Amino acid sequence: MEPYRHIVQYYETDRMGIVHHSNYIRWMEEARVDFLRRIGWPWDELEERGIFSPVLALDCRYQAGTGFGDTITIRVAVREVKGARLVIHYEMENQAGKPVFQGTSEHCFVSRDGRPMRLKRECPEFYALLAELAAATEGTADEEK
Amino acid sequence: MEPYRHIVQYYETDRMGIVHHSNYIRWMEEARVDFLRRIGWPWDELEERGIFSPVLALDCRYQAGTGFGDTITIRVAVREVKGARLVIHYEMENQAGKPVFQGTSEHCFVSRDGRPMRLKRECPEFYALLAELAAATEGTADEEK
Amino acid sequence: MEPYRHIVQYYETDRMGIVHHSNYIRWMEEARVDFLRRIGWPWDELEERGIFSPVLALDCRYQAGTGFGDTITIRVAVREVKGARLVIHYEMENQAGKPVFQGTSEHCFVSRDGRPMRLKRECPEFYALLAELAAATEGTADEEK
Amino acid sequence: MEPYRHIVQYYETDRMGIVHHSNYIRWMEEARVDFLRRIGWPWDELEERGIFSPVLALDCRYQAGTGFGDTITIRVAVREVKGARLVIHYEMENQAGKPVFQGTSEHCFVSRDGRPMRLKRECPEFYALLAELAAATEGTADEEK
Repeated sequence: MEPYRHIVQYYETDRMGIVHHSNYIRWMEEARVDFLRRIGWPWDELEERGIFSPVLALDCRYQAGTGFGDTITIRVAVREVKGARLVIHYEMENQAGKPVFQGTSEHCFVSRDGRPMRLKRECPEFYALLAELAAATEGTADEEK
Repeated sequence: MEPYRHIVQYYETDRMGIVHHSNYIRWMEEARVDFLRRIGWPWDELEERGIFSPVLALDCRYQAGTGFGDTITIRVAVREVKGARLVIHYEMENQAGKPVFQGTSEHCFVSRDGRPMRLKRECPEFYALLAELAAATEGTADEEK
Repeated sequence: MEPYRHIVQYYETDRMGIVHHSNYIRWMEEARVDFLRRIGWPWDELEERGIFSPVLALDCRYQAGTGFGDTITIRVAVREVKGARLVIHYEMENQAGKPVFQGTSEHCFVSRDGRPMRLKRECPEFYALLAELAAATEGTADEEK
Repeated sequence: MEPYRHIVQYYETDRMGIVHHSNYIRWMEEARVDFLRRIGWPWDELEERGIFSPVLALDCRYQAGTGFGDTITIRVAVREVKGARLVIHYEMENQAGKPVFQGTSEHCFVSRDGRPMRLKRECPEFYALLAELAAATEGTADEEK
């Protein structure tokens, strides 16, 4: 799958002259939204079906600074899906191929009124696809660890 | 009425070393929210009553740069209220008393489903208070013009 | 010239369900940066030459709300350039061709240490191009007014 | 030490109706800046001395959603300081005393030109104070683990 690309904006820099670290969290979301759309489950359609997916946890490793005008390539992989819990992994590199960021986000699934939802039961096709993608990336994920 | 104060955050600066201009729009909102709370009509309560107030227009004059750690004092005044339209004026100065920003925001009132709402009919007490505040600041506003 | 496109991100929405108005200011910047790059004067190269261009004023008209996933097309035009002052005009429409925003930003030019700079003298080629672009859009601009 | 307080702004919410998760990263920074100021080592003074402290890693656990107008109390503790590495811990709770977020940020120290700096040698008084604070919170930190 083609990776997502983000071009660094001026408003994303801070007075250190590089991108403020909070923006990578937003780029993770941009890439995640793009990924879900590409695999056929756009986020807005999920929300219209009443499936919401708040973030439970983040793990972020900043490997090198990025600056205004850089093109960041973001690779997204489903790391794990189990019950109401989804773990997504992200790798970012700059236009020179240098790794700049690595992270994971952990999500649960809830209904519109915030009640936990077992995705496997409520939306089995989506669950099956995520499980398949998680199985496919397992080899890579293990090697990294 | 006591003015609102905002302390400039590191994440609000950009690589020019000063605050990115988009943040003043957010400070206008912070001061507006604080103002409405102080005059007894908190924004969240207005929204619970089904009164929403999107921004129709902004006019912003940047007078001097501000930097990390600065304390910005923001004075808010109701400039005009008429039918479904409210104009609010903002003046910001830094800790040395130097003017740094002047602007206005124009708002309408809509219901939850986005239909225009005549505030005078739907919420006459709030309308009356805004009209009174607008009348009180008229002198100042005229002089400025 | 091809217009700039921005895809609305989830993190740009607010609890009203639509894009927070402060983000349009950032999209103006995105489009301006893209425009300068396309006409051959990338912003980062200008800053490397010691030419900085802070925002002096903004004028923003919000015409319709935008939401998560919308594709916003942004047309940028040089409205005026004179001495140390540049005015840029922006028109945004959504994927259905509906106008959603119209605005202008006014800029000055300063050196790294903040001193006003007469662009015509310091960087005559860039000034000449901006003046030419301003003259070309004059007809359109006048009609709008 | 008195904890830091952040009042949730409208522009920090997203269309799920709650605060967008990226903002907690900014609140960690707000609280860290406030903490450094209170212990006598304001961030801007550190930067003036040529000591910069980029974020190397973040670990974030979101425990409950927060909304517009909430008052978030943030407790900051130095978890560890060693060579060029500093770990800070954050606990956030809402106005009802409910825990909403727990996280850590890991920092290094670098000079203006980005070279790693051994804080112990370059700024021994600051290092000593951080080490003392880390030792004082050790008991609490251990229990949590």
